[in-house]
Order: sequence, then structure tokens, then C-alpha cells
Amino acid sequence: MLFYKEKGESAIGIFSHEEVACTAKWGKIRSMKRRATIAEIASAAGVSIPTVSKVLNQRADVAVATRLRVQQVMEEMGYVPNQAARALGGGRSGLIDLIISKPLDSEYFLEIIRGIEEVLHREGKSMVLSIVQEEADLERLDQVVNRSADGALLLLPRLYHDSVKKLQEHALPFVVIDPSVPLDPLIPSVGTTNRSGGFAATRYLLSLGHRRIGIIADTEHYLMAYERFAGYRSALEMHGIPLDPALVYQGNFHPEDGLEQTNALLALDNPPTAIFAGSDWQAAGAYRAVYAHGLAIPDDISVIGFDDVPLSRWLNPPLTTIRQPLQEMGRMATTMLLKLLAGEPLETTRVELASLLVIRESCAPHMAV
Amino acid sequence: MLFYKEKGESAIGIFSHEEVACTAKWGKIRSMKRRATIAEIASAAGVSIPTVSKVLNQRADVAVATRLRVQQVMEEMGYVPNQAARALGGGRSGLIDLIISKPLDSEYFLEIIRGIEEVLHREGKSMVLSIVQEEADLERLDQVVNRSADGALLLLPRLYHDSVKKLQEHALPFVVIDPSVPLDPLIPSVGTTNRSGGFAATRYLLSLGHRRIGIIADTEHYLMAYERFAGYRSALEMHGIPLDPALVYQGNFHPEDGLEQTNALLALDNPPTAIFAGSDWQAAGAYRAVYAHGLAIPDDISVIGFDDVPLSRWLNPPLTTIRQPLQEMGRMATTMLLKLLAGEPLETTRVELASLLVIRESCAPHMAV
Repeated sequence: MLFYKEKGESAIGIFSHEEVACTAKWGKIRSMKRRATIAEIASAAGVSIPTVSKVLNQRADVAVATRLRVQQVMEEMGYVPNQAARALGGGRSGLIDLIISKPLDSEYFLEIIRGIEEVLHREGKSMVLSIVQEEADLERLDQVVNRSADGALLLLPRLYHDSVKKLQEHALPFVVIDPSVPLDPLIPSVGTTNRSGGFAATRYLLSLGHRRIGIIADTEHYLMAYERFAGYRSALEMHGIPLDPALVYQGNFHPEDGLEQTNALLALDNPPTAIFAGSDWQAAGAYRAVYAHGLAIPDDISVIGFDDVPLSRWLNPPLTTIRQPLQEMGRMATTMLLKLLAGEPLETTRVELASLLVIRESCAPHMAV
Repeated sequence: MLFYKEKGESAIGIFSHEEVACTAKWGKIRSMKRRATIAEIASAAGVSIPTVSKVLNQRADVAVATRLRVQQVMEEMGYVPNQAARALGGGRSGLIDLIISKPLDSEYFLEIIRGIEEVLHREGKSMVLSIVQEEADLERLDQVVNRSADGALLLLPRLYHDSVKKLQEHALPFVVIDPSVPLDPLIPSVGTTNRSGGFAATRYLLSLGHRRIGIIADTEHYLMAYERFAGYRSALEMHGIPLDPALVYQGNFHPEDGLEQTNALLALDNPPTAIFAGSDWQAAGAYRAVYAHGLAIPDDISVIGFDDVPLSRWLNPPLTTIRQPLQEMGRMATTMLLKLLAGEPLETTRVELASLLVIRESCAPHMAV
């Protein structure tokens, strides 16, 4: 979000300032049906989360005025320390909701699920898996959050502000995994460094001599795609190469989009010599288009992906890609949620794990014509 | 199991008669810690499941002697109709365990999960997802089945008899999805017609003129692989082609195995002109090996897979394969479990959904040399 506001590029991203404002606002307007999170108390009191935790734990190192303000907010929210201690004291049902959205069609989801389950298993807790539609399925979300779970993990590639608000209404502690919209900084989330991943992918292609690099990214719908695009543009800028809008195509993470948009890129009068795909699966679609044009990878055109799911190793040639630490993201988000439930302070609410360039065989030096 | 016993091919399958006997035996020796399933009562009383259901529902169309025997068994098991009605009356927690084993690395799992969740969602129930090790993780299984779930779905590619016995001890109603060992016919399970799928794949290759067809199948560990192999052998027999053991390779469902075993097949003095892979992912490994040998698919060698996961459409060339109705398997298993929980009779405990040949571009007519 901050990045977005700094750059103010509403022409390419659709995350309007109105939406950002709306996201920030619910910190003030949410209703506390069951229990508030530490983050909400902190937000309402205008203090940090560790400060609220200190007040809850009756620590001495909090200014008296601050302590009084936090306690007042807790009281206004119908919140007393005992109740808080119970709610924050480790969870009652031992169940954690994982709310995941369709299409659920890639190992991307499995890797994250494996990371989540690993931590829950270790902690003796269980995961209740619920699938919602790709669209904001508020009714389903309502059913899910009405359950007796202690907290929720959200893996919603098409997360909507409405969904976040809905969860806020239920006052269920939650952590967002790989958020696709800019979130209020108070909402705990775990993602990857999409921007630096996009930068690394593009810089690698530039280092191979490519100058016309096509990119397929759904910057209109996904924050992560937008950030990867921003990294792409930064890398071009650093190399003094002007952004050519003709090389920027909108496309979802699915192979069908990779196929269609690569076809469009290859049909250009001056086609790219390399393509930065939005995901490994989208890259699989790009491969199909390249082969259908009678071209070879990487001899005629280089392709780079994003994710490093198992597929990438088994495409022919093996796909060079940017690795997202998906299992680690699942583990980290779960650890954060359990901390929230235990009333422990989070070191930070917004975690971005490092992405990594994985070089395989789909990119080659560009031969000057 | 019946098929296995009919054929008695212990040289290839490892499912010894001892194991089969052991599976059948627990019907008599299990302990009833919490509650028995209808299947267990039926087994102990030597009657069908519908008959037990009729007795429970106090229907008139049961012979008096049969009714008395069933009631006696229920009494011996510390089981009274009221208790039965409660246990079978629709579940109390609304939670269904899905116990799934690693490696959890293919869309195969996701497709089945989607089918399960669809039915549970419709019925207002939730799925608790637990992951166990690929090895029989009895401690973990113990944790899982000690929970308050109403019943369990097992998706354990390496199901062991120990695991089944463990669940039997807990007397938790369960349905096995895609069983990998021969099960007591009283244990409800849903699979696909692996044997006819193997037959269809092989017959298709034969129809294209192939006579030397390699097969990679982990018949030593997986019932489904064994059945596909049995279908392969039947198709060859019907065409008067003797089985060549040199063309039969053991390999797990993973691409690494497909790569390794295809390399071995291609190194033969008289290599096959077509390969029947154990799964789509294994076929991806076969592609890699074929390309590494400088050969083309399907011009030089045909490859056929099994599963029809999304990967198959995005390999180059698109993979001809046998479709398993994975989502439907998930839906069917869930429906069966909910019936068990509601005390309704199952029409059959062993369901095999039809597999289907999906012709794409990885198989071509064999050109006689």
C-alpha cells in the first residue's frame, strides 16, 4: 500500500485511493461482536500492538497515560482484561480456519497448506479447510467465520475489502497469506518480495542482453502482479530502457492467459526476445504459444516464470523462475496467528519473505541480429 | 482384492494372502472403544449392511432370526438402538476429518479435495484437514482420530493395514478414497476402474500399431498400479502379444521415476515404441527422458499417462491420458460417509467410477521399420 501511494500509479494499478482510504477506515468503524484482536485495540487506541500486549500483561514499562487510554478503549469495546486473557490465551477449540478460494488448481496452494499444517501439527491444533468462490463469497465467509475456530488464515488470491471487513465484523483474529490488495498495515499478513522478485527476473534477462522484454501481469486485479511489474519497470529504468507499453499484457496466473497473451506478444511487428510470465503455470501457456509459432526456448525466445512450483522443473526446457518460499509463507502466517491467539506481540504485522532467482534452462543470451 | 485372489499373481503384486486374511480378520477382533459402524455390526453378525439398517430402523422386512442375531451382536458390542440412533443420526460436531498423506505434491489431491468440500459445504459441514507422513504414521493417525470429528475420509496413497486397523479400533466411520491396498469388502471405498483404464490405454496404443509397449507401474506398492498393469497385460493377451518382462518397470507416480525408468526403457537393445506411464506427472518425467535422448513425441515414441490432471494439457505435446474422475471420487466418498453417519444403507461399499481415455497429441501410429 505504501509503495502504491508513493508511486501513485493509478493508471496501471486499480487500487484507487478511495479503496485504500476505506481499508484504513474500518480500523475505526468495525463492530466487536465476539472479541477484538490486539491489533484492533492498538488501532483504536492509536498505539502499537506490543504496547497493548504490555498493558494486557500488566507490564510496568508503559506510560500511565498510554495505559489508561488502552484500558479505556478496551472498556469501550466491552473488553476486560480477564476476557482478553481468555480470548488471547491460546484458543479454545484448537481449530484454525484456512479459508481458501477457488480455483485451487495449482501446487501453489498445496505448498502453502503443507507449511500451515506443519506448524499446526506441531502445536497440536487442526486446520478446518473451507473453499470460497473466486468472487467475494460473503455468505460462505459468514458461515465459515461463524464457526468455533480460534482464528483464521486467509489464502484468497482475489481478496476483497468486503471480505476483510466481514472478518473484522466477526472480530476473529486472522492473518492474510499473499495478499492481493493493499491492506491496512495493522492487518497481519505474509507475502513474498514480489517487487524485488520482478526486479531480479528482469535484471537477469537484461544481463543476458535482452532489451525487448514482454511481461504478462494481471496488474489490474492483483497487488502481487502489480508489484512484480513495478520491479520490472525499475530494472528497465536502471538500464536506461524506456518502458514500452506494447510489451505489457494483462493476464491472469493461468496457462490459458499465458498462451493467449504470448500469442499476442509474438504477433507484434517487433516482438520481444524474452517474456516474463506472471507464474510458472502461465509460463506453461507461454511455452505452448512459442512452440505453436515454431520457435524454440531458449534459442529463439527466453521465458522466465514466478513461483517455482514443481511444474517448473518438468517443463521442457526446465523453467528459470523466481522462487516464492510458499511453505515458509504458510509456516510464518500460522506462527503469527498462534502468537496473536496467545496474546503475544508480533514483531511486525507485515512480513515479506525473500524471493529468489532459480536459474534453469529457459533463458539464453540474446543474439544481436 | 477379489480380483487379486482370482488371479493369484503374488509374483508381481506384493499383497500376500496373509495380508488379505489379516484384513478380513479384524472384522472379528476389533474393539469398540467409542461406537461401532453399521459395517462392523453387519460383519460380526454375518449380514448385509442394509439388513443392519433395517433392524436399526425397526423395519418389518427382516427375518426374526436375523433380527435377533443382529440385536445380539449390537448388545455384545455394548450397543443399544438408542445409542446407535444417536451415533448414526447425522453427526454431532459437523466436522469431517480428511486424512491425507504426503507428499501432497500434485493437483491430484486438490481435485479430490474440491469434490469433498463441495458436498460438505452443501451439507453445512466442515473438513478438518490432517496430513500424515507417507509412511504409516500411526501416532499422528491416533491424534487425528481422537478428535471429535463425526467421521473420516482417508486419502492415503500408501494406505497400510495398520492404519485401517487403527481406525477400526477407534470405531470412527470412514470411507477410503482411491485405496492402494486390497481392502476388506466391508470397508467403504471409492476408486476408479484402474484395470479397465489400463486396458483402454494399452488397447489404444495397440490400435495405433504399437507392439512393444513399455509400462512403468509401482505394482509392488500400489493396488491401483497393479490393476492398471493387469489391464495392460489383458489387452496384450487379447491381441496375442506375449508379455515381455523387460518392458515392465517399477516406478512411483513421481516425475523422477518416470525420468529414470524411461531412461532404462530407452537403453534397451530393443526399446519400446510406446510408454504407458503410471501417472501424468510420471509421464512428465518420461518426456524429459525422451527429449534427452534426442527423440520426438509422438513421432519417435508415444507416451500415455494416467489421471488427467491439469498438467497433462500443458505438456508439449499435450498428453493423451486416462482420466480419473477425481472430483467425482471426492464427492462420492463424502456422500457415502454422510450416509453412514445418517444411518442410511449404502447401495454398495465398493464404488469404482469409470475411467476415460482422453486423446490428445502424445500418441501416434507406429511406423513399421
